[in-house]
This record gives sequence, structure tokens and C-alpha cells, in this order.
Amino acid sequence: MKSKKVAIVGASGYSGEVLVQLLLNHPHAELVAVTSRQNAGQTLAQVFPKFASHPKSKALRFTEPNVEILAKQADVVFLALPHGVAAEYAVPLLNAGCVVIDLSADFRLKSAAIYKEFYAHDHPAPDLLKKSVYGLPEIYREQIKKALLIASPGCYPTSILLPIIPLLKADLVKPTGIIADSLSGISGAGRKAEVDYLFVECNESVRPYGVPKHRHLSEIEEQLSLAAKTQVTIQFTPHLIPVNRGILTTLYLEPKEKLSDEKISACYKKIYGSEPFIRLLDEKNLPDTKNVNGTNVIEIAWRLDSRTGRLIVMSAEDNLVKGASGQAVQSMNILCGWPETAGLI
Amino acid sequence: MKSKKVAIVGASGYSGEVLVQLLLNHPHAELVAVTSRQNAGQTLAQVFPKFASHPKSKALRFTEPNVEILAKQADVVFLALPHGVAAEYAVPLLNAGCVVIDLSADFRLKSAAIYKEFYAHDHPAPDLLKKSVYGLPEIYREQIKKALLIASPGCYPTSILLPIIPLLKADLVKPTGIIADSLSGISGAGRKAEVDYLFVECNESVRPYGVPKHRHLSEIEEQLSLAAKTQVTIQFTPHLIPVNRGILTTLYLEPKEKLSDEKISACYKKIYGSEPFIRLLDEKNLPDTKNVNGTNVIEIAWRLDSRTGRLIVMSAEDNLVKGASGQAVQSMNILCGWPETAGLI
Amino acid sequence: MKSKKVAIVGASGYSGEVLVQLLLNHPHAELVAVTSRQNAGQTLAQVFPKFASHPKSKALRFTEPNVEILAKQADVVFLALPHGVAAEYAVPLLNAGCVVIDLSADFRLKSAAIYKEFYAHDHPAPDLLKKSVYGLPEIYREQIKKALLIASPGCYPTSILLPIIPLLKADLVKPTGIIADSLSGISGAGRKAEVDYLFVECNESVRPYGVPKHRHLSEIEEQLSLAAKTQVTIQFTPHLIPVNRGILTTLYLEPKEKLSDEKISACYKKIYGSEPFIRLLDEKNLPDTKNVNGTNVIEIAWRLDSRTGRLIVMSAEDNLVKGASGQAVQSMNILCGWPETAGLI
Amino acid sequence: MKSKKVAIVGASGYSGEVLVQLLLNHPHAELVAVTSRQNAGQTLAQVFPKFASHPKSKALRFTEPNVEILAKQADVVFLALPHGVAAEYAVPLLNAGCVVIDLSADFRLKSAAIYKEFYAHDHPAPDLLKKSVYGLPEIYREQIKKALLIASPGCYPTSILLPIIPLLKADLVKPTGIIADSLSGISGAGRKAEVDYLFVECNESVRPYGVPKHRHLSEIEEQLSLAAKTQVTIQFTPHLIPVNRGILTTLYLEPKEKLSDEKISACYKKIYGSEPFIRLLDEKNLPDTKNVNGTNVIEIAWRLDSRTGRLIVMSAEDNLVKGASGQAVQSMNILCGWPETAGLI
Repeated sequence: MKSKKVAIVGASGYSGEVLVQLLLNHPHAELVAVTSRQNAGQTLAQVFPKFASHPKSKALRFTEPNVEILAKQADVVFLALPHGVAAEYAVPLLNAGCVVIDLSADFRLKSAAIYKEFYAHDHPAPDLLKKSVYGLPEIYREQIKKALLIASPGCYPTSILLPIIPLLKADLVKPTGIIADSLSGISGAGRKAEVDYLFVECNESVRPYGVPKHRHLSEIEEQLSLAAKTQVTIQFTPHLIPVNRGILTTLYLEPKEKLSDEKISACYKKIYGSEPFIRLLDEKNLPDTKNVNGTNVIEIAWRLDSRTGRLIVMSAEDNLVKGASGQAVQSMNILCGWPETAGLI
Repeated sequence: MKSKKVAIVGASGYSGEVLVQLLLNHPHAELVAVTSRQNAGQTLAQVFPKFASHPKSKALRFTEPNVEILAKQADVVFLALPHGVAAEYAVPLLNAGCVVIDLSADFRLKSAAIYKEFYAHDHPAPDLLKKSVYGLPEIYREQIKKALLIASPGCYPTSILLPIIPLLKADLVKPTGIIADSLSGISGAGRKAEVDYLFVECNESVRPYGVPKHRHLSEIEEQLSLAAKTQVTIQFTPHLIPVNRGILTTLYLEPKEKLSDEKISACYKKIYGSEPFIRLLDEKNLPDTKNVNGTNVIEIAWRLDSRTGRLIVMSAEDNLVKGASGQAVQSMNILCGWPETAGLI
Repeated sequence: MKSKKVAIVGASGYSGEVLVQLLLNHPHAELVAVTSRQNAGQTLAQVFPKFASHPKSKALRFTEPNVEILAKQADVVFLALPHGVAAEYAVPLLNAGCVVIDLSADFRLKSAAIYKEFYAHDHPAPDLLKKSVYGLPEIYREQIKKALLIASPGCYPTSILLPIIPLLKADLVKPTGIIADSLSGISGAGRKAEVDYLFVECNESVRPYGVPKHRHLSEIEEQLSLAAKTQVTIQFTPHLIPVNRGILTTLYLEPKEKLSDEKISACYKKIYGSEPFIRLLDEKNLPDTKNVNGTNVIEIAWRLDSRTGRLIVMSAEDNLVKGASGQAVQSMNILCGWPETAGLI
Repeated sequence: MKSKKVAIVGASGYSGEVLVQLLLNHPHAELVAVTSRQNAGQTLAQVFPKFASHPKSKALRFTEPNVEILAKQADVVFLALPHGVAAEYAVPLLNAGCVVIDLSADFRLKSAAIYKEFYAHDHPAPDLLKKSVYGLPEIYREQIKKALLIASPGCYPTSILLPIIPLLKADLVKPTGIIADSLSGISGAGRKAEVDYLFVECNESVRPYGVPKHRHLSEIEEQLSLAAKTQVTIQFTPHLIPVNRGILTTLYLEPKEKLSDEKISACYKKIYGSEPFIRLLDEKNLPDTKNVNGTNVIEIAWRLDSRTGRLIVMSAEDNLVKGASGQAVQSMNILCGWPETAGLI
């Protein structure tokens, strides 16, 4: 199988670190460059002691990000940068012929106006919004195969979209009144030196935040609207909980008609039955982040509540793997024509 | 102020331990007996090393529970026992003239039928259901003053009822479609030697459980129905999160008419404005369990979502204090005629 | 009992926060001023939501530190400032007639030269070193009664000195070859926005640091030398462990002669037998930080190892209470002539 | 490369679980049987939901342990059983021609008398003590190649022996006065339903235990004595800290003669310089369990203390991987003639 050269721009955050880990051990991708302004000049082994036993970790050094050099070195470039900044790199890299897989929010929306509403600045490259593919492989696998620019989804959106989209597409639940209540590990806040994310501030603490209008709502609602073929507005409440990794999402949905466990099960099995990274739980099990952490798997379970008539769907994923870097590698595998699970199990 | 003698039956669990702590340091209550089958014969200092510096901890020994002796020793008896067992003690203690404050679920419901539905056995003393007072002081203060049998509320119910009842009573929200999504620390599971609650099984794990029909629904719905003057059925999803203490509840409510922040604020301030243990947060703050742990305070905040039209109310409490033992002591203070905050701040 | 007015300079760190908590609830001290450059203008309730239920929390506002104003307001001033900075406030406050209780390292040493060796700058007020009293009440109670400047000990030193000093004074162990291996919760690093202390960097992590020459060695060795009446040099290895609070220290000592459990027990009981904040454990118990957290108590246990001939002594304390603010309040109680336990139990 | 069939007896504990994980994904070993009395009849997917995405997890069922059947199915049998019980399986399995890799303490000692002293019962198969090989690959690689019975080392011993043995063999440190102070994650206590290991009992707690005579001392001292060619007695203090995985050991050693950093570095590099699973840290880094968790790597760092003359050596490992199951697989790789790192990186 033909291997490709890959680079990571902005590799010193938590999702950058997981990308490094996955790409160092990938059977077909060769990691040729990692950039980080603050760590330029240092080796991977120096910045990430836990990778120091990997032979390449002492040879590969962080560099200042330079688009021209990157474009010469790499076939595929991952951007693990803040929103707004990612677009600055995406444009010239695409022009230079690289495939770009962006982990930021910059290319996830189709509408520059909604981008501005949620991110509070003009979109830096609105023309590209039409060309980018939303990198949710279980939903957009065919489009990813031909993509040049992948907008890899956010961690919360992945945990919400994968459980709901099949139900909306099959017309089993109403597109109105949807509630998503999510619990996220602290790594979701990034490797930022802020008091709010100090150990002492997070340990023995549980708290909601960003209520009621979190930025991720924009991409969640756009994708749900596409699936439902009507405008969808949802309620979304994120909470911070004292774990390093993991998102647990509980979804409250209203059935369109009388549903049975069999019907829901059939719907999920038809769409996800052979997906390598979706684990549909049975009636005896509920999701638990400890069963997915460190893997690219999302667990999904559901319960019909005969008392309220509601359908409760719950999901668990590792926010840094299926919710970020693992999913980005999954997209890379698809578009490079490699086995979708390469380097991921 | 006249002091009273108090006893704790079943003092070796987590809420028993907090009761011991509160009563050892109470200005008007004198702790005269603690019972525990497994610890009988040991001193408080031996069973709870952290209380060993208290002068009484080396003098007071756990005994086998004996109703006759307890009735002679104590004016007020707290029961920190499993449901079903508590009633066995309550009946003879009441007959012997003691005031009983029960932390179990045995006397929280008015209906023996609902008790059987949710607890899977016949109620052991259905006659007492009419006499017991639901020990939520902010709602039932007047009844508590004259009570002989207090059914102290569960931890989840407290975190749900205190935020919702004022809104239902003021007719600001619909009694239908209510959703309560709760996150509980592991002490809520009790001091039980079960694999599910081992450190390694809980740390770096987040998981829902008891979906969709948790036992606490019975008392939550009964109390909400009383407030709304109509039958209320709610959706309730508890989750276990890796903290020792604390419950964070997020409530999804539908306004009856167009609501404003001012109207909600006025409603809460009118009912809770001078409550010593309810902290109404402003528009800049959201509840955080670390701000209430170790105290008898519940924090309440709300946000109107103009996008969805919903009202989001969030609460935080220490499940072992306001959610259990602190609230029980608060009830004791009221019925004994002591300052309501005695021993609690 | 005559009450005094107290102020805290630098009240926004972790030990400042615990000081606020203790002084808000102190029966004889009246908290009249709290300073913090970054929080000036805000109320206690705004900066520390968990104190918001205290009546004074909405009245008392942080101010910019101003020595003249402080000197007029307060009889006793606590300094919870970084080393080097504390001295700048101590000098004028003392001159203005205040009693100063300093939680920094600035006045803990008798030698300005050793200060310079360990803190890498000249001592800012060397004349005061002779006047300051090392605020370890169990050792220096008489001197504290008459002190004007208290240098409250560091958290590690407290956990090491209290267990060793009685043994050295009684000539039971050799002053050579002492090893102190300490485990500290993350609050010991202060409320600093640094990546090293982020939740994700500390959780599921254990690590030594500052090996082999930690700054606290200077005061530890000076105090041990005074007790042993000979120059003592020890080995000290601090480790960071993922808890908010608590220090667990394990000490390796060599008996001078053949020791018995009785002899050690007698030595400790003679010196500490009636100390309210020292809990001597028996042969069945070992220290555990969870038994002292939130209290001003230090637990001490010992084991003679007949295989190696060594004496192992272990201690547990809350680094922010007995290791910092609680001990400072204990010193205040002594020098103000109040009961030593006032506001501490 | 010729593959082998392997079985695990007692696969439901924490080290059994890691063994399952490693063997499910091993390139040359085929996992054919897993036994567990309590889980007999269930599939791997049912007992360990996190492995449920592995194709074999739904096919392979736990069985009651049956030596005859196991001997027919497997070439190599791992025993993850309590001490005393392991020997009962080892004897007949060896007789039936299987290679046995035992993770218990049953075959780690050469002396049945010392076994009895530390484990409080007669050794169940003393004849085998001579035949077993202590499975520390970096020290006994040649013997492991020809072994039929491997006694895989304990977690604490691995963290202590690997750093000290090279220094003793090179005669750089004295065999007397050695102190090992170790901090272990809670998984070291096993998946046992005991109150002491509940989340609430361990979180926000740090505590020594088993002081001064922990069972692992027996194998530690036997191995150190072999390396030093003289009887070695050490001081060992284990502590429990609230992490799932990881052991951090701090060793206090006395140099035999004046040592330099270069000499120590040369000693370690000579012995461990090309070891795939030993990471020697430089003067800028100290071990951190988060850098080794989930891997078979042990980190080692050292500091000479010019003040005390001592050598401080620190190590970090994952107690369930390098400290248990990973090391056992490493031994299997060696004795089967496979690459030593197969299935481990």
C-alpha cells in the first residue's frame, strides 16, 4: 500500500499530542513534520517524554510553521490550531496541492454568517466552506474519499450527531425539542494555562458552562438540519467533570410515532451494524467513558421510557480520539484509500 | 436554650458519618448513642479516626441497636438505615415517645401503593405515611415544627424539588415535559463493598445508571404533583461521576407564558430570598459543587434560552449534607425550636 | 474576651482563601480588610462564591494593599504573599504597631546567608530575622505569646518537624542520616496559572520534583539543628500527587540506642499528650490525609523495624490548614491570649 | 514466525484484564481460553465491554478452569491467580507439557522457608522453586529463553530491582542501608470488593500501609542479595495514592566510593542502553507515571546529592503492564523466540 507523508501544524496541544501518537504508529502514514512556535527546535522526545521510546521521537524536531516548507514535505497536513488561525494555513496549503485535515471549527459550517454569529469574527476564507467536507466518516464516507479539505468535527458534536442522525433520517424522532446534556473531561478545554482548569479548581468539582449558547451548537444544528431536511434548533448543556478524557452525552428525544425497541435497534443496526468504531450496546449495558477511553470507539445505548414516552439515547467517546484526532486519522485513512481502521486499533 | 438528647441508628455509612460529625459539634443537641451492628463495642474514634480529636469520640461507643434502650436514652432518634429496615425502628420508637427523623425512603411517600411499585415490597407501616412530614424545610417548615416523624428527603429529590417547586407554585412553568439530568458523586452509592464503586471502576469513568426509572422518581413526582396541583411525571437521568461528594442537577423546563429574567428572579427571591441555605446565583455565575461541598447550602441558577424558549435551571448541593444529614439536622433544629442554622454553619 | 481586628494581605491564593474562611468564622477576631491587587473592588462573595452565604461576604471588598490604611484598620495583619514581597509589608506594618503573622518564607530563617543560598536573593530585612518567632506553636508556644512578628512555618516543614523534634530533643534518634519522603496535594503549588498544575497534567500522575535541594530544606534543617544542638543535614524528596489537599510524610530515622515502642510512645506522649492538634496514632492505625483534611490536626504514627533497626515515623496534615493558615491562626490565638483552639475546631 | 496457543487462568482481575488486552492483539500468540469461576459462560465482550469491538471478544467465552482441557488447548498458560492457588495449576500444567507463566508470588522465591515466613503457609510445590525462572527479562533474559516455568515479578519489586541491580552489580552502591519508598495506584490492590478500596475511601486520601514488613520484601531482598552477592535487607514503605495505575518508587542509596554523574550514567547505559522497555532520563527530567501508563516502559532517573552524599534513584512504571502483565508477555516473547517487543508497542 502506498504510504504518504504527513505533517501536523500545532502539535503541542492535547489533540495535537494524540495525533502525534497515532501518526507515529500508523502503518501507512509517515510523520515528517510537527510544528509549534513555542517548542520549535525541540525533539518530540523532549516535548512528549512518553513518546521518547519511539525511535523517531529523537530525530523529529518541532519547527516554526512554514507553509512553503510544509507543502514540500507533506502530502497530508493536519491542522490542530485555534479557529481563525487554521484558515490562514489551509488556504496556501491547499493551493500548494496538499490535502488538509483541519481539527478546528474553521471549515465545519456551510454558512459564513452562522460562523460569524458563533465565532464573533468574519470567516477568513468563506469560499472554502463549500469545498470542505464534514469529517464524520460514518455519515460522509463517500464525500471524504474525494475530499481535499476535511473539517474534522468537534468532540461534543460527534457525541451528539452520531446517535441522532440515523433516527432523524429514518424519521423516527421529531426534529423539535431535542435536548443534549453533555459531560466532558477537562482535556476538552485544551492545554491552556488558565486558573479555571487547574487541578484544584476541577477536582471535586462539577459545573455547567457556556449555558445556553455554546459555539458547537452551530455545527450540531447545521448537521441535524441536513439530516432532518428541516431547520433544527436544540438545547445543549455542556458540563465539566473531573476526568482527563471522555464525553458522556445524554439525549432526550421525542418519538414521531409509537416506537419499539426493535424498531430503534433495527434502525441503528442497519446504518451502524458494520461500523468498526460504533459499538451499539444491548439492553443490559449503558455507556461508560472508561470503556472507550484511548480508543476511536463511540458507545451508543438507548432506552424508551414508557412513562414519559420519550426516547433516551446515551453515548460515550474519548473526546481526544473519536472526538478529535482519531476521527481525523479515520478520515485520512478513507481519503488515502487505506483500511479505515489502519493505525486505530 | 433547652438541649435534647439524640441518637443515631445506623451510624456507620456515609450519611451516618456526617450526622455524627454534625451532632458532635451541635450547640444544643447532645449525641448520646450511636448504633451499628458491625461496629458494636468500638468507640467513635476507632470507627472514624477523623473525629478522634473530639473529646466525646473516645467515650461514646457503638452499640447494637436496641429500641428500648434508645427510647430511654434519647429524645430524638435519627435513622440512617436502608429502606424497609427503617420502618421497623420507627414504629416502636414513636410509640415510646421519641421524635424520629428518618433518612431512608420509608416515610417519604403518601401512597403505600407507589412505595410498593418503586421499592418492590409492601410498605412495612402504611399507617404512618399520613403522619410523617416530608423534611424539606424550605417547603414544609410549619409542618416540621409539629412533626413527630420526619421523612428526610433523598439527595436527588432535594436537588430537583427546591429549584422547581417555586416555579410550579407560581405557575411560571408547565408541569409537563420536565427533565432532570443529575450528576452524583460516588458517596451517593453508600459505603458498600461492591466492585462497581471501587476507585478503579469510578475514576476516569462517567456513566448513567438506573435509566429510565430510578426509585427517587416516586418522591420527586409526588412532591411536584402537590406543588403543581396536578399529576406530574418527569424524566430523570442520574449519572455517576468521580467525585466524593456533590450533586449537580440540570433541569429543562417549559415556561407557561413568556418569561423574563426579572419574573423568575422575583419568584425565587420571594420564596427563597431569606433562606439561610439557598444561594440564588446571579447572571454571571453557575453552580459548582465545590462551592457547596461540606455545607448545607444549595446553589440555584437559571438561564432563559431565547433560541429554544426553554428555562434551564441548575442546582448544586452536597449530597451528604443538604442532600441528607445536614437537612435532617435542619429539620431537627426547626422542630426543637432552636435556630434553624444551629450546628450547620 | 477582647476581640481584635485582623487583615489579610494577599488573600486570593489557596492559603489566603483558607485564612478568609477561618477568620470569617473566628469568635474573637474580626476580619476588617482583605487585599488583592487583581481582585481589588470585588466583594469576598464575588471572589469566593463558597463564602457567599456568610453575611460579611457581601460587605467586605478586596482593596489594593496600602500599608498606612491597613495599619489604621487592623491590630493583626496576616501576610499571604510570595517570599521577598512579604518583607516589604512586614517592616512598615511592624513600625506602625501591628502584629504581623507572615505565611511566607521571609522570616523563618535566622541566617540571612542561608536565606540567600536557598532563595537566590538578598534578604530584604535581615534585622528582623532575630526578632521573628518561628510559628510552630507546639515547640515555640512561650515565644509566640510575646511575639510581634510570627514566621508561620511551611507545609512540608510542619509535617517533618513536629514528628522529629521530640525524638531529637529526647536524644532517641541520631541527628544524621535522616530522610524525609513527602507527598503533597496540588494546592501546595498555589493558585498559579501554569501548565504543570492543570488538571490533565496532574490527574493520573505521580512525580517527584525539586530533587535534591528544595527550598524548604533551609528552615527544616535550621529547626532540626536547634533541637539536636548540632548541625543537621537531611535528605528530603517531595512528590506531587493528585489530591487537592494533604501532605503525607514518611521519615526514616536511626535510633541512637535500642528503642522500644514504649519509649517512643512515652516520648511523644510527654511532649504532645495534651496538644489539641496532634493526634498520636496507636499500633493499629497509620496516618491518612483524609482523616485530617479540613482540620488543624496532624496525625503521627511510628513503627520500629526490627529487621533494619530503623524507626519509621509517618505524619499526615492538611497542607493549607496545619501546614499554613490554620497554624497561623493558632499562633494568633496564642499571642492574643485567646483559647488556642478558638475558630479551629 | 510460528504462532502459539495461549490461555489465561484467572482472567477477571485487573492484571488478567490487561493480559487479555495484550494477548487479543498479539501478532504471534493466539488467545484460545480464558477461565474465571465467577464469569464462566460469559463472553469476553460481556465481562469486558471495552474489548467488545475486538472480533474475538464475542466468540471467546470464560470457562471454569480445567487443567486437562487447558493442557490440550494451549501451549503457554498464564496464571493470574492468588498466591497459594497458582501452584495448584502450575504443577499439572507443567506435567502436561505446557509452558507456565505465573503472575502470582508462588514461584518467585528460591527458599520455601522464606515463602512460609512471608506468606504464612507452607509452599505448595517446593520442588518447583529450583526450576522456576524469575521473569525479569532485563536481568534473566538467557534463563527465560529456556524456561518452562516463569515466575513473573511483582509490581513493587520490578520498580525497585531494575534501578538497583546494575548499581549493586557494578559495586557502585553499598548493599546496606537501602530504602525504597513506593507509591502505588489503587489497581495494585486488585479488583476486590473491599471497603478500603472504594472510590470515596481512596479519593482525596494518601496513606502508607503494610509498614514495615510487606510481602514483596521477600523477593526484593532475594534478588538484591543475588546481585550483591551478600545478604541484603532493605527498608520498604508502600503507600496508596488515588490514581488507577502507576508505581513511583524513590530509592535512597549510599555510594560505595565517590560517585560522579558520568559513572552512574555509564553504568546504566552499559546495562540498559539498548533495552527497549527501559527509559533512562537525563538531568532535566524526573519520572512521572503519566509518561509510562499503558506502556511496558519503566522510567529511571537519578540525582547525586552533594549535601548528603546519597544517591537518589527514582523509577516510574505502570503497575499492571511492566509491573505485571506486560512483563509476563515480554517473557513469553523471549521464550517463544519472538521479537521481545511483539504485541507490546
